[in-house]
Amino acid sequence: MSDRIRLGMVGGGEGAFIGAVHRIAARMDDHFELVAGAFSSDAERAERSAETLRVARSYSDYVEMAKREARLKSGAEAVAIVTPNHLHWPVAREFLKRGIHVICDKPLTSTLADARKLAKAAESSGAMFILTHNYSGYPMIRQARAMVEAGDLGKIRVVQVEYSQDWLSRTVDNKQAAWRTDPEKSGAGGSTGDIGTHAHHLAGYVTGLQVEELAADLHTFVDGRALDDNAHVMMRYQGGAKGMLWCSQVAAGNENGLRLRVYGENGGLEWDQENPNQLWYTPLGEPKRLLTRAGAGIGDAAARLSRTPAGHPEGYLEGFANIYSDAAALITAARDGSTPDAGAHVPGIADGLAGVGFVDACVRSSKRNGAWVSM
Amino acid sequence: MSDRIRLGMVGGGEGAFIGAVHRIAARMDDHFELVAGAFSSDAERAERSAETLRVARSYSDYVEMAKREARLKSGAEAVAIVTPNHLHWPVAREFLKRGIHVICDKPLTSTLADARKLAKAAESSGAMFILTHNYSGYPMIRQARAMVEAGDLGKIRVVQVEYSQDWLSRTVDNKQAAWRTDPEKSGAGGSTGDIGTHAHHLAGYVTGLQVEELAADLHTFVDGRALDDNAHVMMRYQGGAKGMLWCSQVAAGNENGLRLRVYGENGGLEWDQENPNQLWYTPLGEPKRLLTRAGAGIGDAAARLSRTPAGHPEGYLEGFANIYSDAAALITAARDGSTPDAGAHVPGIADGLAGVGFVDACVRSSKRNGAWVSM
Amino acid sequence: MSDRIRLGMVGGGEGAFIGAVHRIAARMDDHFELVAGAFSSDAERAERSAETLRVARSYSDYVEMAKREARLKSGAEAVAIVTPNHLHWPVAREFLKRGIHVICDKPLTSTLADARKLAKAAESSGAMFILTHNYSGYPMIRQARAMVEAGDLGKIRVVQVEYSQDWLSRTVDNKQAAWRTDPEKSGAGGSTGDIGTHAHHLAGYVTGLQVEELAADLHTFVDGRALDDNAHVMMRYQGGAKGMLWCSQVAAGNENGLRLRVYGENGGLEWDQENPNQLWYTPLGEPKRLLTRAGAGIGDAAARLSRTPAGHPEGYLEGFANIYSDAAALITAARDGSTPDAGAHVPGIADGLAGVGFVDACVRSSKRNGAWVSM
Amino acid sequence: MSDRIRLGMVGGGEGAFIGAVHRIAARMDDHFELVAGAFSSDAERAERSAETLRVARSYSDYVEMAKREARLKSGAEAVAIVTPNHLHWPVAREFLKRGIHVICDKPLTSTLADARKLAKAAESSGAMFILTHNYSGYPMIRQARAMVEAGDLGKIRVVQVEYSQDWLSRTVDNKQAAWRTDPEKSGAGGSTGDIGTHAHHLAGYVTGLQVEELAADLHTFVDGRALDDNAHVMMRYQGGAKGMLWCSQVAAGNENGLRLRVYGENGGLEWDQENPNQLWYTPLGEPKRLLTRAGAGIGDAAARLSRTPAGHPEGYLEGFANIYSDAAALITAARDGSTPDAGAHVPGIADGLAGVGFVDACVRSSKRNGAWVSM
Repeated sequence: MSDRIRLGMVGGGEGAFIGAVHRIAARMDDHFELVAGAFSSDAERAERSAETLRVARSYSDYVEMAKREARLKSGAEAVAIVTPNHLHWPVAREFLKRGIHVICDKPLTSTLADARKLAKAAESSGAMFILTHNYSGYPMIRQARAMVEAGDLGKIRVVQVEYSQDWLSRTVDNKQAAWRTDPEKSGAGGSTGDIGTHAHHLAGYVTGLQVEELAADLHTFVDGRALDDNAHVMMRYQGGAKGMLWCSQVAAGNENGLRLRVYGENGGLEWDQENPNQLWYTPLGEPKRLLTRAGAGIGDAAARLSRTPAGHPEGYLEGFANIYSDAAALITAARDGSTPDAGAHVPGIADGLAGVGFVDACVRSSKRNGAWVSM
Repeated sequence: MSDRIRLGMVGGGEGAFIGAVHRIAARMDDHFELVAGAFSSDAERAERSAETLRVARSYSDYVEMAKREARLKSGAEAVAIVTPNHLHWPVAREFLKRGIHVICDKPLTSTLADARKLAKAAESSGAMFILTHNYSGYPMIRQARAMVEAGDLGKIRVVQVEYSQDWLSRTVDNKQAAWRTDPEKSGAGGSTGDIGTHAHHLAGYVTGLQVEELAADLHTFVDGRALDDNAHVMMRYQGGAKGMLWCSQVAAGNENGLRLRVYGENGGLEWDQENPNQLWYTPLGEPKRLLTRAGAGIGDAAARLSRTPAGHPEGYLEGFANIYSDAAALITAARDGSTPDAGAHVPGIADGLAGVGFVDACVRSSKRNGAWVSM
Repeated sequence: MSDRIRLGMVGGGEGAFIGAVHRIAARMDDHFELVAGAFSSDAERAERSAETLRVARSYSDYVEMAKREARLKSGAEAVAIVTPNHLHWPVAREFLKRGIHVICDKPLTSTLADARKLAKAAESSGAMFILTHNYSGYPMIRQARAMVEAGDLGKIRVVQVEYSQDWLSRTVDNKQAAWRTDPEKSGAGGSTGDIGTHAHHLAGYVTGLQVEELAADLHTFVDGRALDDNAHVMMRYQGGAKGMLWCSQVAAGNENGLRLRVYGENGGLEWDQENPNQLWYTPLGEPKRLLTRAGAGIGDAAARLSRTPAGHPEGYLEGFANIYSDAAALITAARDGSTPDAGAHVPGIADGLAGVGFVDACVRSSKRNGAWVSM
Repeated sequence: MSDRIRLGMVGGGEGAFIGAVHRIAARMDDHFELVAGAFSSDAERAERSAETLRVARSYSDYVEMAKREARLKSGAEAVAIVTPNHLHWPVAREFLKRGIHVICDKPLTSTLADARKLAKAAESSGAMFILTHNYSGYPMIRQARAMVEAGDLGKIRVVQVEYSQDWLSRTVDNKQAAWRTDPEKSGAGGSTGDIGTHAHHLAGYVTGLQVEELAADLHTFVDGRALDDNAHVMMRYQGGAKGMLWCSQVAAGNENGLRLRVYGENGGLEWDQENPNQLWYTPLGEPKRLLTRAGAGIGDAAARLSRTPAGHPEGYLEGFANIYSDAAALITAARDGSTPDAGAHVPGIADGLAGVGFVDACVRSSKRNGAWVSM
């Protein structure tokens, strides 16, 4: 058994949400060991978090952290970046240029310019860049992708994807809401950046299709908010498929409603993140079938990421952990010079660029009254 | 007890679908008696249908039918028009001008020009014009409308409506498919006309809002088909609400997926035609509630159209029959000079004009590459 | 086209529930014409109901009605009995002995002695006796039965059936509740008689199996109530299958929860009355399939009772009407000396005897502290 | 931050299922560190597992392990026992008597005699005994229990609990099936022991009620199997509530169908393990409400065990981990002499005794043809 991968973390201190998720995800399958962190730029807060988390080396400056960890014999081999969006690029740069793998939360960056710079930095680095589009780690999403790839649906015609929440239906005063509605930290997209990018990625991930052009109608319903909290988008995919994307953070009664429906010439697939162990499959002209994680007739793409038998639900954290486990497989193989599991793969720079491009296109289109714009 | 309303029918002979639905709907609550029919323009077929249906007076020419029924002492007081779309206007004209109430299937007409002529004819007639946007007859839709009207949701922000089917995923050779995909008979809209008009109407009916402008991306996926079989539409409502509408007849696994979701400042409502006895209501910040037809906490708008206790599902035919029963209440009141039940109301010319206008706007927008067009 | 069957009705006047259901069911497919009624034993009330219902001949005495209708040239050919249970036998007797077909609500009678007398009367009559175990009229129940019969499930092992409601969770003061909780009118069973008989019948209807012995634990939770309002029953079927039956009228949150699950050596079926257009089918070792009324892969047993396309839900009234339509097919064939549709069949005396026997066995077992008793 | 609890494990080597689950559960919230294991009685297999799992100290003899770990300064403080049932008692004994906390899989033991001995051993030990009735760790189960305790349902009347699977519908040849169908290893109960005990525990956990007597009909459907694979049980609870319990491993189409429904004088609760983040609550006479983990209106009992926001599903492993985390809270408090979180609690010996007693009562009753027997 190979040693655990030594992991650092930037961001994710007290009061953060996604940092804790990354830590559980990294721990779930025991491939990582958290050895260092810059959990806050405030040294005292950083130190307090490190202690709580039993992390040996605490930093308040991510540049210093990158420098020092790179020099240590047993320094971090990879770093998880869980800061607000605008810091992804400056933080990633420091680690990438020192050969430390980066596991970064989405969206890639807060601006398209930063995204392009990050893409270059990643390209010229010997280290890997992994973007946690965690929903693509759900086993039934892997199953869906494999089925599309195998041609079970025939040529794809229609994509319906949506991501609806309600937590920003009114003005919210907390750390999570604050940076997500601040253009300086979040970028030009509000709901489009925070959740629309997930929806956009998931649709592309499952179908293998890329958006060619889109027309968007972004809106801010809550007074005083600087970024969109609801977006309606029509999409045209390369090859002729058509799509619709709705993302909203003001849809009362929706907790985390990421839903994907894909229809092809010969069949359809339907999936809902809140019941992630199920995938509905209809071969055209036959009864609808309920495919379940680890259930009858499930292929290897899903099976390899399953920890429990059918009917023992795996959830959001397990899906997130699958990204970390595939990352671990790739990182370990790179470290050992071995060949990773054939099914292992992770979202990366290209996905991140497409995501930031999606937000940018939405904003451009919306400013031009919903005109079609290229991505 | 007032006498049953004497009803005639044009269309709906052998092999038709919607004619039989209208007949059951008219019969359900025993307010109508079918006394005459022009079930086909082929005299023999018409006669055969009349005999099968035990209808006394059979015609093959609707003009003759209108003339003769108008002259008879006990002639038809109302006529159900269940022909392909292009005949709605010429048939309706004959009956309206003779003072016979018209109960007409949707969409109103196959062209906007016809729709306007029909609107004028209806206005100048002493008879009523009723359009069977049957989905607005579902009790839980009435409940939803009443709740929006009562302000339970606050100001409406977002409308998500869709109507998905899969029966035209391939080329289909039957009577139903033939006229629905023929522009001469159906009009300029395919899925937009056949089912999009229902979705558009339902959203407007529940919210009380009118579409101000829309942007549409219509597409025909099946080779050789003349009309759209999938449509993506973004909408802007008067007063600032935003909407999306998807209609498709090529979405494998969707039987009759009419779904409406409405979100306001203070709450949300969600409804699915395939489970029509349920309505999901979320007051913002409280648990989601499952409202059921005839169940706890249901208001009079739904209760007055309920025939069975909660848990004894009423379906499509009952919803359709509610339109007929409200029509009967209005017709009977008109006949008797009495006041109908306060809750009785029916879709009419204005709804029909809006529906044909919706199709027209979709086609116009789509031809202009999805530009926003006014309705 | 054969003439409509002339129907009479006993019971079902003002304030009744099931009478109105029978009338809609009889009217749905236009095979019956309501020509006479003894809607109440109070002449004035009876007359008022007859007038409201536009029924020509009104009686307040069912004996007189039976005599007179039998003598009339165009008298009732069939009578619907929709009285409280204790009157089923005396009313049915009068009509059966005069050769008038009886369509009777369930349970058959309020006592086993009456049931046996009725069985003899039916046997010696030239007329048919039809018991409205309406839930067996649902198309997907027909489909389920056909699948079991075809061997799709292999040998049946386990039957889980339940019927849960909550409307009697407290003392209720209305006409419906009054007679149902009165042993004089309802018989020895409360929930067992009112809804348990439906559950018992449905399980037997679908599986083709008969209960050999049962052990029951009946209970009355509401103070002052004379009959059971909750029953737990274990069953052993002929041939070795095992079953459980739960019926309750005190289960908060259950409106009309009739649910059936059947498991065999090779597969399982699951059905819920509140979503009656769906049937879940799992061939052992394959994904679960959602079969839908009029949907893909549905056999003739369901298709012949379908009025609308898939996705256009049919409900409780349509299921009830299917019993009436099959009854009409049989009555008409008897009248004409012709052969009815091969699929037409109705619940009858044997089902009724089994139902009353079920209640009797439940009461006997419960009195003996849940000992196993034969049926 | 207190040090992680040093954990050992007995059982759970190659090819085991529940051992891996315990390890993930222990790791999830980072309260434990796996330091020693007797993963197999075969030394080589044990060693191989230890290496794969990066566990420092490997044993093939649990007695030796108990002795040595007890002596080590940094030996295991707690041990997870994940062997087949018949080994629970002999293994637990060794650790309990040396003051090492035991976290043991259910059922407690394979015989009632062993269970009583274990109870005594636990009583006289200074160490804690924790039984992983993991389903009681689901947040919505904690919510349900809190609601019952708070009186939201009023006096409980009816309990419906079931646990249905289909994986033993035929003869199965694998390690999991082998010991579970072997009376020597599993005990006198098959499905009753393996899953019936979970159902029994869950119902008691949520309602706070104890079964007074039960009547059971156990059956083995698969030829050649030595233990029950389907069980029907009627229950009478102390205080007058009535219950039914069904457990089956031959119900085609059921993956892991643990479902609980509880009805009281004032309301009802319904929960399904395959959708564990949801809890249906109906206050009598009001609409049904969908309570969700971390959603609106959720109390502290659920909130304290929630890692992710509403709509981000937590699953089986998280529920299992909650038992481990509460165990950690209690163990740490014991170690530190501090007071644990007020909400922390774990299933223990009493639950285990009740579970083995349940199996014993089921077998006794079934042998006496389903007679009522006391627990």
